[in-house]
Amino acid sequence: MAEAEVGDDVYGDDPTVKALEAATAELLGKDDAVYMPSGTMTNQVGIRTHTQPGDAALYDHQAHVYQLEGGASAAISGVLPRLLPGVRGIFSPADVESAFGRDHRFVPSAVAPPVRLLCLENTHNAGGGSVWPLDTLTAVAGAGRARGLALHLDGARLWHATVATGVAEAAYAAPFDSVSVCFSKALGAPVGSCLAGSHALVARARRFKQQFGGGFRQAGIIAAGALHALRHHRERLHETHANARRFAEGLAAMPGIALDLATVETNIVRFQLTHVAASAFVDEAHRRGVHMLPSGSDGVRAVFYLDIAPQDVDDALTVVDRTLAALARSPPEGA
Amino acid sequence: MAEAEVGDDVYGDDPTVKALEAATAELLGKDDAVYMPSGTMTNQVGIRTHTQPGDAALYDHQAHVYQLEGGASAAISGVLPRLLPGVRGIFSPADVESAFGRDHRFVPSAVAPPVRLLCLENTHNAGGGSVWPLDTLTAVAGAGRARGLALHLDGARLWHATVATGVAEAAYAAPFDSVSVCFSKALGAPVGSCLAGSHALVARARRFKQQFGGGFRQAGIIAAGALHALRHHRERLHETHANARRFAEGLAAMPGIALDLATVETNIVRFQLTHVAASAFVDEAHRRGVHMLPSGSDGVRAVFYLDIAPQDVDDALTVVDRTLAALARSPPEGA
Amino acid sequence: MAEAEVGDDVYGDDPTVKALEAATAELLGKDDAVYMPSGTMTNQVGIRTHTQPGDAALYDHQAHVYQLEGGASAAISGVLPRLLPGVRGIFSPADVESAFGRDHRFVPSAVAPPVRLLCLENTHNAGGGSVWPLDTLTAVAGAGRARGLALHLDGARLWHATVATGVAEAAYAAPFDSVSVCFSKALGAPVGSCLAGSHALVARARRFKQQFGGGFRQAGIIAAGALHALRHHRERLHETHANARRFAEGLAAMPGIALDLATVETNIVRFQLTHVAASAFVDEAHRRGVHMLPSGSDGVRAVFYLDIAPQDVDDALTVVDRTLAALARSPPEGA
Amino acid sequence: MAEAEVGDDVYGDDPTVKALEAATAELLGKDDAVYMPSGTMTNQVGIRTHTQPGDAALYDHQAHVYQLEGGASAAISGVLPRLLPGVRGIFSPADVESAFGRDHRFVPSAVAPPVRLLCLENTHNAGGGSVWPLDTLTAVAGAGRARGLALHLDGARLWHATVATGVAEAAYAAPFDSVSVCFSKALGAPVGSCLAGSHALVARARRFKQQFGGGFRQAGIIAAGALHALRHHRERLHETHANARRFAEGLAAMPGIALDLATVETNIVRFQLTHVAASAFVDEAHRRGVHMLPSGSDGVRAVFYLDIAPQDVDDALTVVDRTLAALARSPPEGA
Repeated sequence: MAEAEVGDDVYGDDPTVKALEAATAELLGKDDAVYMPSGTMTNQVGIRTHTQPGDAALYDHQAHVYQLEGGASAAISGVLPRLLPGVRGIFSPADVESAFGRDHRFVPSAVAPPVRLLCLENTHNAGGGSVWPLDTLTAVAGAGRARGLALHLDGARLWHATVATGVAEAAYAAPFDSVSVCFSKALGAPVGSCLAGSHALVARARRFKQQFGGGFRQAGIIAAGALHALRHHRERLHETHANARRFAEGLAAMPGIALDLATVETNIVRFQLTHVAASAFVDEAHRRGVHMLPSGSDGVRAVFYLDIAPQDVDDALTVVDRTLAALARSPPEGA
Repeated sequence: MAEAEVGDDVYGDDPTVKALEAATAELLGKDDAVYMPSGTMTNQVGIRTHTQPGDAALYDHQAHVYQLEGGASAAISGVLPRLLPGVRGIFSPADVESAFGRDHRFVPSAVAPPVRLLCLENTHNAGGGSVWPLDTLTAVAGAGRARGLALHLDGARLWHATVATGVAEAAYAAPFDSVSVCFSKALGAPVGSCLAGSHALVARARRFKQQFGGGFRQAGIIAAGALHALRHHRERLHETHANARRFAEGLAAMPGIALDLATVETNIVRFQLTHVAASAFVDEAHRRGVHMLPSGSDGVRAVFYLDIAPQDVDDALTVVDRTLAALARSPPEGA
Repeated sequence: MAEAEVGDDVYGDDPTVKALEAATAELLGKDDAVYMPSGTMTNQVGIRTHTQPGDAALYDHQAHVYQLEGGASAAISGVLPRLLPGVRGIFSPADVESAFGRDHRFVPSAVAPPVRLLCLENTHNAGGGSVWPLDTLTAVAGAGRARGLALHLDGARLWHATVATGVAEAAYAAPFDSVSVCFSKALGAPVGSCLAGSHALVARARRFKQQFGGGFRQAGIIAAGALHALRHHRERLHETHANARRFAEGLAAMPGIALDLATVETNIVRFQLTHVAASAFVDEAHRRGVHMLPSGSDGVRAVFYLDIAPQDVDDALTVVDRTLAALARSPPEGA
Repeated sequence: MAEAEVGDDVYGDDPTVKALEAATAELLGKDDAVYMPSGTMTNQVGIRTHTQPGDAALYDHQAHVYQLEGGASAAISGVLPRLLPGVRGIFSPADVESAFGRDHRFVPSAVAPPVRLLCLENTHNAGGGSVWPLDTLTAVAGAGRARGLALHLDGARLWHATVATGVAEAAYAAPFDSVSVCFSKALGAPVGSCLAGSHALVARARRFKQQFGGGFRQAGIIAAGALHALRHHRERLHETHANARRFAEGLAAMPGIALDLATVETNIVRFQLTHVAASAFVDEAHRRGVHMLPSGSDGVRAVFYLDIAPQDVDDALTVVDRTLAALARSPPEGA
């Protein structure tokens, strides 16, 4: 990164940023891409390019764009969410269709805001890293297209889908007008995301990037890290998947833990605790050096990154085992 | 109305408007009220007074403020809806609590937008005119208050709850920071609604009324109609309830119609057609002089107003009977 | 108004509203028009139809849409104003052109928001009821069109221009995509305004009207008053102009008052007090039965309505004379 | 930067980001600071923390926050700008006061949006790097405070004021509720800015940072560069000032150039061309290796950065001289 050629990204003349954008667009099979500081910004600028205030958008009820992006789609784009009942983030063409049940002879369109946008998330974060089957994704996108909707793919974790299934990123991206991808998180670059789409869409997105405050100056220095991650880390994600699988198999064998191995598709492992509270478990494991997140009162979520080695997995399993034992000995607070 | 004293409402000096606002505030047990052109505006200005862009609000999934107000809460107030699973629009304190499951040690509050507002709707329009039991309403409002939420009551049809139960409007309104009521629709005035609350809230609301374009000039002429309706039509609503009941009982006895009489609480009757499509039924009945609305593929909704007489109800039942007979004779389109 | 045929304007089936909209569209030479509760709403919905958040709009620095509409163009439409240096609200094609001085090779368009809209106001309220010369208006609109701008005319007081010059409303409206007109204020109807334009624009505007909370129900009852005013009061406006002129000529002859008769073009009279403070003058005249508004520390503004008779003008001149005399006798507060 | 300790800034646990924020807050005499990707974001989040949609803000008519931030203050915060007539970006307490001329007895506050915020910019970019005299800045801020306004300082170029005058950054920052500063541009770090203020303000700002899409992940790697610039480059800015001065003095002696040396206060030099067009001049100089920007038809702007040496200045003067000579020989396009 120290040798990256830099320019001023606000003027569009940073060569490393331009190289990153071109490489991302090519990988996703789109005309162009624009680099931004965060996945939230690429998703929300994507939503902004497709909508105007008072439009409605279809999201899975657990979608990252709805749940975990600071309310930006309403706050900045003025978009009303219509929520679809996905299972682990995956929904059906019929779910899309159900959003159009009202007969506009009787409910004037001025009253019920028009649906303009359909968002999918692949792999689905809150769904535990679930992968959209390509044919389901294609059918759902087709249902949206038939209704005249714009289509956005939140691909912050798209790399994982490709590693898990062998389906190219561009094949997942094909039905969509806009696709966001992240270089940080599992891919291991420090900062940044891209939004890809047609030339016209990306031109609009560049304007909104600036308006949202994403016009960083000598961004080449961090784009260099992202470009390196794009070129060299994608194939290494299978290691994180193998580690997640190894961890899940170890957990599944432990008493006090319920885990469906079929839900471990990528680098995320989710499990239920049958005897202890998730918050106590997570706190105690953290004290013992393993960082996981609670999900509800008895659920736990563990995410695997590139710098975790197989030996770390075995050590983590030992920590889990000892944590459960320690909590079994100590009565819960208030008892 | 022709003799109404008028002034300029933009300058706050229209005496008829002021009289209407004072009468409404008194009836609802609030400090003050402000007159606006529509129920959508009173609800949306209410939401605006309680929130700022990026806040989240709890609505029933079928709430009028969410479904049928042009997306205004997102478009104008930038508020992200969190939907509660009400049954006929009625939900529980536990439903409110479920919106607060995330542990902010793990999901930073910057990421998950803070919930600031809880809205209830009484009686609930999309719920078929369902009435909130006072103790349920009080408990739900208490759950919201315990979480520090502002509380808004969409009382566009509040008069019906009072007529149906004998509980005073002010008792329903008591737990809420803001309450909207409508003088048009069932109450029979041509135009207008009020938003009631504390002096401070109403002062803020007056500003937003102007910003939304609700600053009508010599509004006294229509406020006079609303004041008349408020004083003289509320007690007459029981006639519309009796007519709705009479209609529902007639329908319940007809073959081809499914109707649960327990759901007919006010002036709205909803029923299912077991043999014909709702859209064909509604069109044919309209041709025969009875105006109803379809609700989904087989549901129908009928609403009773002040100027419908008992004899009209019997005539309408005859129309329904003949409509069903006519449709039974004619095969459906495409068959 | 009591005999007006009414329907439900939310469903677009109120015949009196439809008649008012058709008559307004025809008078302005546009395809269609939509009735709303206020002039602020017609202007702001007009702005909303032409823009999206982050666009810039050109306004005269004293424009009603900028100064006196609750900040709605920023708050609701997210539009950034670019202010033009009009004189009494009238500006030139060169003023329009000056907003495009930046060279986008050097100031990226993402950084400087794109100008999308040009608004004119005729007659200009804050300019003292000044009338745009038709050729200036046409040239300015042409300059905006050449830059690809949408064009909106705030015609709340357009009737006055036609009465003052004989130029038809439709001729003033011709260059514009959207035109707002008001039936209250000088025209004497109690409530309401129309926005006129193409079929497509008005269809969009109907949606935003609902979203802003302008969907009144049985609006026919007030639309009847507006329709009457449109048909019968426009030609009577020349009486208000004659009264304003009579008042201005009387004032111009009084010591202690500076008034340029060339600025009295319609029903507004503005003058400067050379010896007493405007606020004291206005308060004292109000106590004596004449209502005027201060404008800055020494300016006064008087507006003439239909129900003011010539004798009232002479009485008002007497009040002004005595007010000046009374204030001359009493030393100013604090002296 | 390669050795920076990093964490995840979304969770607030990146030690290098925290160190940068603490150092910035201390330097500015504020409780806390928050790191963001751009100066636009720190300014616009600052504006967002102080206002809500429909509020008005006082800006200099050439302010960066108004002119060059993508319309964000209207698009995202819904704020209506009120423009002050600064000279080279410097205005007076009387200018602030002039925004409050309307008497709210006559212009209801609902109609004229309330002014909530006053922004200053020091040094002023479009003003040519002009420095606010401390007593003027203090008096203007005091006038705003007396009116109950929140106060924001756009200090993207604040370091230059301190280098030029010896007045500490904290002294300039003292009257303000929020202060933004930039580490890129003249300070030489690749990316990023901080917004400083009270604990409460910065906590609010962290939420809006996330909503705007500024939550970068392992931001420590770029924060390290910013921290280095903050510690080691500020004192070196006097070199850029000396170079700007040297360049300006050289230009002032050239025929064909008008330049007032009193306007060269920091690292920006602005001059007028008396015989050739600015765009042709800038293009030709760029071909000869010197990058400047046109400003209007005959103005030019040159900015000096840390990596420009005194010898580069002399070379640039030679380029300017030859550029003028070359353009003098070639007749202008179209002649």
